[in-house]
Amino acid sequence: MREIAIDQLDDIARGAAVLGTGGGGDPYIGKLLARSAMTGKLPVTVLDVAELNDDDIVVPTAMMGAPTVMVEKIPAGTEVIAALRRLSGVLGHEIRATMPIEAGGVNSMIPFSVAATLGLPLVDADGMGRAFPELQMVTPTIWGIGATPMAMADDKGNGVVLDTIDNRWTETFARSLTVDMGASTLIAIYPMTGKQVKEATIPATVTLIERVGRAIREARERHADPVVAVCDVTSGFPIWRGKVGDVSRRTVGGFARGTATIEGSGEFLGRSLEVDFQNEFLIARSGDDVLVTTPDLIAMLDAETGEPITTEGLRYGFRVVVLGLPSDRRWRSERGLALVGPGYFGYNVPFVPVEERFGQG
Amino acid sequence: MREIAIDQLDDIARGAAVLGTGGGGDPYIGKLLARSAMTGKLPVTVLDVAELNDDDIVVPTAMMGAPTVMVEKIPAGTEVIAALRRLSGVLGHEIRATMPIEAGGVNSMIPFSVAATLGLPLVDADGMGRAFPELQMVTPTIWGIGATPMAMADDKGNGVVLDTIDNRWTETFARSLTVDMGASTLIAIYPMTGKQVKEATIPATVTLIERVGRAIREARERHADPVVAVCDVTSGFPIWRGKVGDVSRRTVGGFARGTATIEGSGEFLGRSLEVDFQNEFLIARSGDDVLVTTPDLIAMLDAETGEPITTEGLRYGFRVVVLGLPSDRRWRSERGLALVGPGYFGYNVPFVPVEERFGQG
Repeated sequence: MREIAIDQLDDIARGAAVLGTGGGGDPYIGKLLARSAMTGKLPVTVLDVAELNDDDIVVPTAMMGAPTVMVEKIPAGTEVIAALRRLSGVLGHEIRATMPIEAGGVNSMIPFSVAATLGLPLVDADGMGRAFPELQMVTPTIWGIGATPMAMADDKGNGVVLDTIDNRWTETFARSLTVDMGASTLIAIYPMTGKQVKEATIPATVTLIERVGRAIREARERHADPVVAVCDVTSGFPIWRGKVGDVSRRTVGGFARGTATIEGSGEFLGRSLEVDFQNEFLIARSGDDVLVTTPDLIAMLDAETGEPITTEGLRYGFRVVVLGLPSDRRWRSERGLALVGPGYFGYNVPFVPVEERFGQG
Repeated sequence: MREIAIDQLDDIARGAAVLGTGGGGDPYIGKLLARSAMTGKLPVTVLDVAELNDDDIVVPTAMMGAPTVMVEKIPAGTEVIAALRRLSGVLGHEIRATMPIEAGGVNSMIPFSVAATLGLPLVDADGMGRAFPELQMVTPTIWGIGATPMAMADDKGNGVVLDTIDNRWTETFARSLTVDMGASTLIAIYPMTGKQVKEATIPATVTLIERVGRAIREARERHADPVVAVCDVTSGFPIWRGKVGDVSRRTVGGFARGTATIEGSGEFLGRSLEVDFQNEFLIARSGDDVLVTTPDLIAMLDAETGEPITTEGLRYGFRVVVLGLPSDRRWRSERGLALVGPGYFGYNVPFVPVEERFGQG
């Protein structure tokens, strides 16, 4: 057990956006949300998964929708509380703690806002160790844990409870409702027992994102290279360096989809990298050469400051370094790859772990 | 209080399809559903609205979706029970009775299936006195009664509970979910107290549809004109006679939409009638001449047998009589017309009561 105070939010939001792999929301908005909820409150208590009792009920909280819309429609903070309260009523159980379901600039911070507002502890874990675009793409799905009952709340006061036969149906229904609700909504999902959290989630993600965020800040403070610092903490590899060229982007079916082209510089001069995204970066290719694919993480950092860049923040001319970071081993299993491997997203390429490709370099 | 037994279902389903004004589902399927649930069970007890206690909880049950799909995807009967049970759990109240929310070949019969299966009484009333395509189009909306909490269930075992700030949002969310669920779903909606049922619904609709169905049957038995018999019972008017020509039809956004052309015969020879529908018939026009519009009822009957024809049953060459039937006075109020008048459906024409136009004829 430890405590996290307001002055740690900067590091956490920044680190979360690195693991958000282009998605998971803008860290600036996430920080504002959490800061506003934590102001005047006690620090948030963070529990290790080992500190949970097996029969505790833990409910992750998050924002769902296209990050492009989240930027324009900042949640008030009350919607997610409404969703959690609704789910608590359905469960007929007191909720012991909340936790993030994914790492991301907004979605790592929403649970801090919930924890501070309700005086609940937050579990140091998440369901992805990164961000993914669809609800069923969490390690609890691999363990057969249901996403439902799940509660949704919009900014108008509407609420929905879903109870589905599998997590793909949860995604289908919730995505349609998200579109109806104006392309973003707040959710309480994957209610789990303490035992399930210990078995089926990725532990210590909050600690990791804080370390990543801190590494970037401290490198800047001592005039070191923040990109190197991120690679040290995450066991990642720089895979490209260059300037953002064309970015095609459309919000469709409740997702931000598109492709960013990074014109190479230095050793990559004369070549270009194409990075496809569906909220999150999915695959990085240069011509026929596939550099990194999901489930490994593709992160884009400002070449100078190391600041993570989300898909909605990508702008022509930005000078960036693209990193490949190894995903959690749970995603590299057969069942993990079926859920989030390149094939699921329509890319007919094998998954090659990033360290196999770049580890010798 | 009276009882309705299996041998009365024929009349009820047929009469319901007349008031279903082209929608509300196929009476043959509705009859099968109710017959299957009632076989081997006690007759269904039917309560007058006056027999309800003010604090009784009444929950209408229905099928939602495009009737074109209902024909191919007959509900098992268990889905609607699942929806009702889910809603009962949310309400935390025992349910005193079910009732139809609209008149229609399927939607008047679903509550019989529920009543027989659960041994619940059925209230002799409905929320429209006809069928309309959208959820908010019920007289309880005029009285400010919410459609939610509302429960939905599909044939796969998925369930949803909606809780919306108004009945238009209920329609929006439920329609998207209906599309996701395969264009049809079973619902429990508009939970009301006995007091609300007495104030805000249309009483004796079940009795009326049985009278309409019986009038058609008896006229046939005594070789009289069933069309005349229907007009007698409903205070309706024959407005057209002819042969079905083109029928354009598409299932879009969870609705069956289209236009049927009726080539005139007899006094209408050489002219044609166009009837637009969105699940239900909305407007009947001949050239620039508007004959009948919503909220008044447009019914299409087989010219010989008086059998009602639903929009999905319309076929080229059918010889039909088109009737205009006066709608309940509640729909002719300012608030009623705002909800279901021609303007709501995009027709820039005034509502003229059918008896004003045809009453002198």
